[in-house]
Amino acid sequence: MTSANSRLERDSFGDIAVPSSAYWGAQTQRSVENFPIGGQRMPIEIVHALARIKRAAAEVNAAKGLIDKNIAEAIVAAAQEVIDGKLDQHFPLVVWQTGSGTQSNMNVNEVIANRANEGLGAPLGAKAPVHPNDHVNYGQSSNDCFPTAIHIAAALVVSGRLIPAVKRLHEALDAKAKAYADIVKIGRTHLQDATPVTLGQEFSGYAAQAGYAAARLEKTLPDLLGLAQGGTAVGTGLNTAPGFAEEVAANLAEQTDLPFVTAPNKFEALAAHDAIVFAHGAINALATGLYKIASDIRLMGCGPRAGFAELRLPENEPGSSIMPGKVNPTQVEAITMICARVFGNHQTITFSASQGHLELNVMKPVIGFAFLESVALLADGIDSFILRCLDGLEPDEANIKRFLERSLMLVTALAPKIGYDAASKIARAAHKNGTSLKEEALASGKVTEAEFDAIVRPEKMLAPGEEG
Amino acid sequence: MTSANSRLERDSFGDIAVPSSAYWGAQTQRSVENFPIGGQRMPIEIVHALARIKRAAAEVNAAKGLIDKNIAEAIVAAAQEVIDGKLDQHFPLVVWQTGSGTQSNMNVNEVIANRANEGLGAPLGAKAPVHPNDHVNYGQSSNDCFPTAIHIAAALVVSGRLIPAVKRLHEALDAKAKAYADIVKIGRTHLQDATPVTLGQEFSGYAAQAGYAAARLEKTLPDLLGLAQGGTAVGTGLNTAPGFAEEVAANLAEQTDLPFVTAPNKFEALAAHDAIVFAHGAINALATGLYKIASDIRLMGCGPRAGFAELRLPENEPGSSIMPGKVNPTQVEAITMICARVFGNHQTITFSASQGHLELNVMKPVIGFAFLESVALLADGIDSFILRCLDGLEPDEANIKRFLERSLMLVTALAPKIGYDAASKIARAAHKNGTSLKEEALASGKVTEAEFDAIVRPEKMLAPGEEG
Amino acid sequence: MTSANSRLERDSFGDIAVPSSAYWGAQTQRSVENFPIGGQRMPIEIVHALARIKRAAAEVNAAKGLIDKNIAEAIVAAAQEVIDGKLDQHFPLVVWQTGSGTQSNMNVNEVIANRANEGLGAPLGAKAPVHPNDHVNYGQSSNDCFPTAIHIAAALVVSGRLIPAVKRLHEALDAKAKAYADIVKIGRTHLQDATPVTLGQEFSGYAAQAGYAAARLEKTLPDLLGLAQGGTAVGTGLNTAPGFAEEVAANLAEQTDLPFVTAPNKFEALAAHDAIVFAHGAINALATGLYKIASDIRLMGCGPRAGFAELRLPENEPGSSIMPGKVNPTQVEAITMICARVFGNHQTITFSASQGHLELNVMKPVIGFAFLESVALLADGIDSFILRCLDGLEPDEANIKRFLERSLMLVTALAPKIGYDAASKIARAAHKNGTSLKEEALASGKVTEAEFDAIVRPEKMLAPGEEG
Amino acid sequence: MTSANSRLERDSFGDIAVPSSAYWGAQTQRSVENFPIGGQRMPIEIVHALARIKRAAAEVNAAKGLIDKNIAEAIVAAAQEVIDGKLDQHFPLVVWQTGSGTQSNMNVNEVIANRANEGLGAPLGAKAPVHPNDHVNYGQSSNDCFPTAIHIAAALVVSGRLIPAVKRLHEALDAKAKAYADIVKIGRTHLQDATPVTLGQEFSGYAAQAGYAAARLEKTLPDLLGLAQGGTAVGTGLNTAPGFAEEVAANLAEQTDLPFVTAPNKFEALAAHDAIVFAHGAINALATGLYKIASDIRLMGCGPRAGFAELRLPENEPGSSIMPGKVNPTQVEAITMICARVFGNHQTITFSASQGHLELNVMKPVIGFAFLESVALLADGIDSFILRCLDGLEPDEANIKRFLERSLMLVTALAPKIGYDAASKIARAAHKNGTSLKEEALASGKVTEAEFDAIVRPEKMLAPGEEG
Repeated sequence: MTSANSRLERDSFGDIAVPSSAYWGAQTQRSVENFPIGGQRMPIEIVHALARIKRAAAEVNAAKGLIDKNIAEAIVAAAQEVIDGKLDQHFPLVVWQTGSGTQSNMNVNEVIANRANEGLGAPLGAKAPVHPNDHVNYGQSSNDCFPTAIHIAAALVVSGRLIPAVKRLHEALDAKAKAYADIVKIGRTHLQDATPVTLGQEFSGYAAQAGYAAARLEKTLPDLLGLAQGGTAVGTGLNTAPGFAEEVAANLAEQTDLPFVTAPNKFEALAAHDAIVFAHGAINALATGLYKIASDIRLMGCGPRAGFAELRLPENEPGSSIMPGKVNPTQVEAITMICARVFGNHQTITFSASQGHLELNVMKPVIGFAFLESVALLADGIDSFILRCLDGLEPDEANIKRFLERSLMLVTALAPKIGYDAASKIARAAHKNGTSLKEEALASGKVTEAEFDAIVRPEKMLAPGEEG
Repeated sequence: MTSANSRLERDSFGDIAVPSSAYWGAQTQRSVENFPIGGQRMPIEIVHALARIKRAAAEVNAAKGLIDKNIAEAIVAAAQEVIDGKLDQHFPLVVWQTGSGTQSNMNVNEVIANRANEGLGAPLGAKAPVHPNDHVNYGQSSNDCFPTAIHIAAALVVSGRLIPAVKRLHEALDAKAKAYADIVKIGRTHLQDATPVTLGQEFSGYAAQAGYAAARLEKTLPDLLGLAQGGTAVGTGLNTAPGFAEEVAANLAEQTDLPFVTAPNKFEALAAHDAIVFAHGAINALATGLYKIASDIRLMGCGPRAGFAELRLPENEPGSSIMPGKVNPTQVEAITMICARVFGNHQTITFSASQGHLELNVMKPVIGFAFLESVALLADGIDSFILRCLDGLEPDEANIKRFLERSLMLVTALAPKIGYDAASKIARAAHKNGTSLKEEALASGKVTEAEFDAIVRPEKMLAPGEEG
Repeated sequence: MTSANSRLERDSFGDIAVPSSAYWGAQTQRSVENFPIGGQRMPIEIVHALARIKRAAAEVNAAKGLIDKNIAEAIVAAAQEVIDGKLDQHFPLVVWQTGSGTQSNMNVNEVIANRANEGLGAPLGAKAPVHPNDHVNYGQSSNDCFPTAIHIAAALVVSGRLIPAVKRLHEALDAKAKAYADIVKIGRTHLQDATPVTLGQEFSGYAAQAGYAAARLEKTLPDLLGLAQGGTAVGTGLNTAPGFAEEVAANLAEQTDLPFVTAPNKFEALAAHDAIVFAHGAINALATGLYKIASDIRLMGCGPRAGFAELRLPENEPGSSIMPGKVNPTQVEAITMICARVFGNHQTITFSASQGHLELNVMKPVIGFAFLESVALLADGIDSFILRCLDGLEPDEANIKRFLERSLMLVTALAPKIGYDAASKIARAAHKNGTSLKEEALASGKVTEAEFDAIVRPEKMLAPGEEG
Repeated sequence: MTSANSRLERDSFGDIAVPSSAYWGAQTQRSVENFPIGGQRMPIEIVHALARIKRAAAEVNAAKGLIDKNIAEAIVAAAQEVIDGKLDQHFPLVVWQTGSGTQSNMNVNEVIANRANEGLGAPLGAKAPVHPNDHVNYGQSSNDCFPTAIHIAAALVVSGRLIPAVKRLHEALDAKAKAYADIVKIGRTHLQDATPVTLGQEFSGYAAQAGYAAARLEKTLPDLLGLAQGGTAVGTGLNTAPGFAEEVAANLAEQTDLPFVTAPNKFEALAAHDAIVFAHGAINALATGLYKIASDIRLMGCGPRAGFAELRLPENEPGSSIMPGKVNPTQVEAITMICARVFGNHQTITFSASQGHLELNVMKPVIGFAFLESVALLADGIDSFILRCLDGLEPDEANIKRFLERSLMLVTALAPKIGYDAASKIARAAHKNGTSLKEEALASGKVTEAEFDAIVRPEKMLAPGEEG
């Protein structure tokens, strides 16, 4: 049934009404109707990557004389519009569809065909001169297109968004490490007072974490650069021309400036997604690191009066409607929630990747979805965290000094002189009596005031020393 | 800076431009600007639940004479519009915000205040006569509103959407169990041939799983029915009137027809979310069950020629563009991907719930988000699975019979007569020679054809028997 | 090949040498040799539960006249020795074996048969008069025995060890809640100063968590009480006598004092383990709660000088070899590591339970292993945590008071009198100037000293009040 | 209280009775008594690694003249005995202890000191001439020793056990890929019949997975090679001599033949374990791959009569006691359960690594335990899987051929000649009528028998072709 608002499209199951303004066709429409589940759309990065594949395939097939040049040009032009994001509203499908992503592949085939035909003067739904299967999908199968698209999308966002964000995080933390290099504070282990560190040393540890995280992400990229394209339905490459796989990979490398290559083994590339699990493992490790960094900053900012209050976090918005002056570490909270989501995505990806059967893993859409969600959230979240939290941090040197001076752990410096046991007694007495180390040390008769002042100097406890 | 398209709103941080058409105010706008992260909006069910709280609080406070009757009425009317979904576009905030959900609570306060003032003839942004904090948020804190909203939203969707869907699943499976009661087929353990079962018995097992799943979900509901409301900022109930907590809970019970009560301990209700972890544990167990059921149906549908092919799944859409006649179990694939997402959400929720500090857990938005996502996906997915897969299943009795007859495991029935060892030799000979049991049994000279035919009858191997 | 140290045992694969002193037989020995993996033994609770099944089956079968009375008596006597832990060293098999637990079931059959024969004067390995399969395993299959044993073991330890431990935890926390009822301290939300609570209120929240946790565990018990026994190989009950399933369950109920019943659907009971997933979901929720409680106690114990230091934890052992006086919250660390293990076990169980195929789930040993590990660690860990941490806690009232008095959030009490804005200015001034609330309040001219002293009283901020 | 069986040892908490035969001392004994939890011992690989550190430190400190040469020699000799596994029974501590592993570090210090003193003629418990802290632990803290030991142990087992096992797996799979290169079989996607592949192509995919897995493990090794040693209590290196960190790392490199280096940033090395998370991420990815490979082999072995039966798995032990001839894929079941455990360990490690506070992460023992458990189980399990499953696999060529010939997907080869639509009709007719492709193709009149036989040849459908 059609109306002013719809037209008929057709596939091997027969006719089906499609909204008049939609570029998509029958198979997309069936998916819209058969999967009324949730609202999570197939990530647009995967759609764009599929369009890149269509463009590459058209160019390669045309060069081989396998499809007509005019048709190829029309496909390339339409595909480029998809790549450029001009047709995003024509990809209505959700993640919860066929596990090979076939319907999203057909969505791309149909939109490109219709748009190409429109450009060539044919009506929507004509399937001629450009046919979604015979031309746009020529030499391809969803089974190789979709994992290729996941790899393209993943490699682009990891290299283009996430690694740069992590590097900016590294720089921001490193800048703090340098700025705080001379601020001596109490160290804490087991959340108990310990020997001194500088605030800069603490941030140097965070900076090291960020630096490693970027390096780890880079180590996982090569696996993402191998593409399934050319394997077609089962990995054999049936219905592709010799050289197709290699030339499409080269074309995609040129399109994206990333050194994509054809995967050495297409059976693995269709049926297994261990590469994604490994790459997301680096993302997962980044999240464990971020969680620790953000939690520490929250802890050092705990206060303003009844906590450590060693750091002041930027005030970005009113805190409580009841309690004036309350500043909440909201950027920390956002980033820690993102980490929790990433841990969940890692679980989803790990489970899904283990569930392939023979020639195909049919959990592909959720794998791609979860991976891209992690990257987008972390990239956005890290940049917001840098801009609205890290950059505006300020040490509260008065509080830092107060805690440092009160610490009983400075007694450690006395041990070489008066022995572990005597030092221990002094510390315990101070702890029990609520006195200062100095008071008890002098009371012990083991050191003079001059000696105490010369020895118990936190600023000399920050590195290996001659005493070894 | 304002323009034709914006107006100024104000909070304790000063003025800020808000889109003219928006009902939200300054604090919402700050959140929009401070959390440009991802695009996952705060679930609308939580927004609606917050509006229910605002309505309940206004009614209770007015009855106590704590706020003016006219103001309360205006709040109630505006809140009802939010509850009815008429103002959904005025809640632009994302999940990745403050971990107490303060900004979404303020978003609701601001929208209701502006809409109420508009109804009373005052301009947007006036904060009078209805003030977002002093009136809409009267006697409340985000710290009690937000967990209350999560519980309301969760209880509503679990009882209103998920349990009914699981019960429909139970019915659909039970109907198949009855319809297939007389179809005898080979059983398989370790994915190896075993003694016979009926197809109905298999589906009775699936139906039992669904039945238990519904019962488990119901067992977790009581914990969700306890509400944090009335605890305010830290659980003490500071700034609430005596009775407020109980009366708001009763009001919400009446609004929703669910027996909400005030949580006996508000400190627990703000700082811990074990109840959500437990409830999602039942959802997680549902997902393990669903995964098994769906996987079995896929396995029994494996074919059409080179697999078990004991079940024919409905053909909902064309399969491959290359391979005619190919039907893919796409509904199975959608539901199994949903299960994988649910497993991930369980991880996110478990992690997040463990991370509370003292008076508050500040992972609330991601906990609510993940919980509601699981419910929505499962409820939608189960209904689609019933309608487009289960209901249309058809047994392929010819294939079922063929596998059953070829099975060597029917030899088990001979053991009581000829002994385990003799039976074993017959089975091994048949396996080795590729012959039938009957051929080898007759060749063994241990049984006559009449005896064999009388004894080796799969339909007698389906229940406990006299032989014990 | 035998020697002085070995004897020959035999199964359908032929002869195999077994250590002379071992009661086990050929199939156990094959498993020892075929699975040289890790060292994690099949949990002894599962072995004992299998022996309970053997005893019950022997009694029921003898009563039905299906096996000889003398043989049954010998089996019962031998099984009882296994149940009593007298033969634990004869169960050498690891978890990483056949996924149905067949080899551990045969281990129990073999040990009981050999021990029974020994009692009857026959040599080990004789398989007569008592045969491991024909008598000990009569009317049973590993496929029903093993899941029955998991349920028996799980129900026994959950009801006998874990729930009592959680109840003791509840009592210990509740005792602290009462003891600390009058200690007013600063509340903290977002790890930022908030309005006051009592230390007792905080512990009442923890006690509530423990109370709920016990109740949740109890809610999951009924599902564990349904037993697979009687389903035999595929759930049909082939080769059992009518009534066997029900009578064995009744016998096991009498043996254990737990109300075991036969599972209504045996197909579900063999192929699905959703009940275990749900029960471990309650354990998982307990762990999220415990993690929060233990973390809070660590946080409040942070110090002794440079942290909150609101609680003093018992000193159980020397802290650092370098830093005298250092007390580490080691019991907190043990219990939090246990929680991390439980979260991992939940993942293992969830994954494994989703992976059944048709008539059987063959991840049973790892499911049972992970479940029992969680219970044992939590039960032990909770008792240690109570005894060596909770019971010895002492509040540091001086520190508590100091933080409370310095808090700016007490300004909240002034708001009703002087208005939110004026109160806000006072708090901000104090924060900025490092002064006390009182100083700034008097400086503001809005209140007199008498008024301030009358109003700003933390002990009046601990409950709902007339001001509403 | 001592007796014939015990002696007194002493620490700063006083005297404590220790079993006479034990080399451990007071602090170990306190841990035995304070942590009666579970039975999981600290992995012996960590104990041995700690002893390597003690040896290295003694050598480096002696060379610097910081401890006496004779004392150093005695320490080295005793440490070597620990390294060689001669004193394993003297390390009774469990994983569930202090989160810094302090007690296990002290256990090693105490055992080495007592054993060294014994060698020097002094009684156990004398603490002289060799003192556990002053000499064995000289220049060290548990906070740097323990993470160093985890890295040493992890790097040794990953490089020495796991990578070699994965490479053997690769070889075994690759050998099968070559052996099966000419066995043409039906491909299956979505568990539905698809176009042909060779069995060798399938195994080439598995081999590729194993090859990648080994390469990924190698990529994560460098991060494990950076050692925390020299950071002492908080990362500053307080109480170490200049050069100590570098020289100890060099010494450990020489001891182990692995290129250990000192970690560039000790604050990161004590407080963060992202490196372990990343390395276990590669292990996790290996497990997803293994799970798929093993599951496929089980699926292809499904039978013997009522399944695919394309592969025959080695028969290692009797299957069912009821069903003669039943072979269960028990090695597959063991390895898949191992994978489930690894997924759980990944969860435990990820959670734990995120939970560091300031200068220290105190989840170290459970992190090390879970990591080493994964490696041991996988290394053992893979070797067993190769030996007892993979190597003995045999294709059932008759079954393979039967499925291949019956496949309707061979119609794909007709499409280029007679068109997609006509080919589709033939396939559907054959599916509906239960006939062969050939019958329907000839009935259609579109091809002659000669043409059909020339075109429909699976062996020509295994690679890209001229038809493109």
